[in-house]
Amino acid sequence: MSLTIGVDVGGTKIAAGVVDEKGSIVEMVKRPTPAANASGTIDEISDAVRELLTRYDVDAVGIGAAGFVEESRSAVMFAPNLAWRAEPVARQVEERTGKPVFVENDANAAAWAETKMGAGRGHDHVILITIGTGIGAGVVLNGQLYRGRWGMAGEPGHYRVVPDGRLCGCGNRGCWEQYASGSALAAEARDFARRSPGAAVRLLQLAGGKVDGITGLEVTVAAREGDAAALRCFEIVGRWLGEGLADLAAILDPGCFVLGGGVSEAGDLFLDRVRGAFENGLTGRQFRPHATVVLAELGPDAGLIGAADLARKRLAASARSAVGAG
Amino acid sequence: MSLTIGVDVGGTKIAAGVVDEKGSIVEMVKRPTPAANASGTIDEISDAVRELLTRYDVDAVGIGAAGFVEESRSAVMFAPNLAWRAEPVARQVEERTGKPVFVENDANAAAWAETKMGAGRGHDHVILITIGTGIGAGVVLNGQLYRGRWGMAGEPGHYRVVPDGRLCGCGNRGCWEQYASGSALAAEARDFARRSPGAAVRLLQLAGGKVDGITGLEVTVAAREGDAAALRCFEIVGRWLGEGLADLAAILDPGCFVLGGGVSEAGDLFLDRVRGAFENGLTGRQFRPHATVVLAELGPDAGLIGAADLARKRLAASARSAVGAG
Repeated sequence: MSLTIGVDVGGTKIAAGVVDEKGSIVEMVKRPTPAANASGTIDEISDAVRELLTRYDVDAVGIGAAGFVEESRSAVMFAPNLAWRAEPVARQVEERTGKPVFVENDANAAAWAETKMGAGRGHDHVILITIGTGIGAGVVLNGQLYRGRWGMAGEPGHYRVVPDGRLCGCGNRGCWEQYASGSALAAEARDFARRSPGAAVRLLQLAGGKVDGITGLEVTVAAREGDAAALRCFEIVGRWLGEGLADLAAILDPGCFVLGGGVSEAGDLFLDRVRGAFENGLTGRQFRPHATVVLAELGPDAGLIGAADLARKRLAASARSAVGAG
Repeated sequence: MSLTIGVDVGGTKIAAGVVDEKGSIVEMVKRPTPAANASGTIDEISDAVRELLTRYDVDAVGIGAAGFVEESRSAVMFAPNLAWRAEPVARQVEERTGKPVFVENDANAAAWAETKMGAGRGHDHVILITIGTGIGAGVVLNGQLYRGRWGMAGEPGHYRVVPDGRLCGCGNRGCWEQYASGSALAAEARDFARRSPGAAVRLLQLAGGKVDGITGLEVTVAAREGDAAALRCFEIVGRWLGEGLADLAAILDPGCFVLGGGVSEAGDLFLDRVRGAFENGLTGRQFRPHATVVLAELGPDAGLIGAADLARKRLAASARSAVGAG
């Protein structure tokens, strides 16, 4: 069975794993990310890959990172959590490891994994929405990862849901991720606790009495216990999320939305509210089939698994086109 | 040279044209649409096609209509301006004409025509936005018309740009077409003329002194003359439109936006404002190439030309798969 390596490059750690054709991780190694150091990050990735290469016979390496990856899948134009700016990542890791290397946006890689081996199995049109600090997304259309003209498609976290709305890290106002992310959930709860501490007793208790100690985790725990304030926060954020899915369905008509990331770990608590808002907001809802909305299955390793599988797929495509040319 | 027939089924008239491989219309016939009569509309389409068949040797027929067309391209599930509800259009016209018939959403057909033979030539990722009474759209991705899971993709006119915003014909509130269409342009001008008639003298003059006589045409004429109120209306609607294009770029990263429909006939007056708002609203604008925004070239026949070309393409694909199967 053919093996490839998937690498997930986060702002704090690098995870590299040997993945088989079924998407199972055979072995994984982790390193801290020297995020402020562009070439240091390349070195750490290469070291992790070389360590795995001493023990496994591997065909190719796929690297997933948050950021804009240009269309040839070799360079990262901009990575918000790393020092990479127009960094030729693939070439450098190839030089240091001797293996073919392909780079992919991490959410794209995760969307691919969830479609092929996770919650989107059996669907050809899948949108993965990863709800964490912000909103990450990956789009599979007609059974293929959709990248756009310049490899920058799939950033619905920055479409505008409120004119002149909340300021976003991207510089614009009113971006979806300011309303439908894990940060938005925590901000909603903190704001409420600050204004109405008497009604946020349980949230404050879980957060050690400090408003700023309330994170998505405390809101989830309180909501699971049935706390009204926490449930209301889920309702608000779930509604923004579901309404956004309805917008995406108007544009892309997918068969399946997969929800991943921290917030989605709240499970049905969250999913029911998202589904309700989606169904209610879908244009032409009485005249069309409705996409299914499901929770991700592969967890935080989805990006690594997807990057490994895309590297395998990409290598096979190169081989085919080389045969065709020869 | 192979000929096909394209049919544009509007709410008031049916246009059927014989189209050659280069997209030129060889001959066109028109009939009134008996819009309230589902089978009557089928009959008129079939009559128009049969009339053309007496004079031309034609391979296939493509029908473009506003509405939801299901994924096999044979039935129209819902057409807002016609009596068709889950109407098996292709089969019925095939029975009456003896030719293979394919149905397509009219904006999809127009997007295909503009991409292959119009303003989007040379691009593989094109979004056509048709700005008329509402907003129509068609999406070409990776060189192929994108239809979505159930054939209902490409309806960005109904993504929400304002929470709890203006009521839309689709039943939702705040849909893009309520802010960035020809109707929105006229409504903006009428609203202004009602509140500030002294500053809308020229608009009112052009409309025969009646506020309700102000349509997109009067606003365009006044704006071309340099009238400040009319220019301001274009600025407002152009900004909504450009900001919406920025949202679509965040999601789909196209190489080219083509603007068609009545409002786009205002030309640079409109285009400059749309481009400005698009550039300004694009997320990550400093780190990515920007899509071009251009005016449509094929005019109101784009849908007919596209439907004819898609019928040719579809017929060729059927022939190939028949050969493959046999």
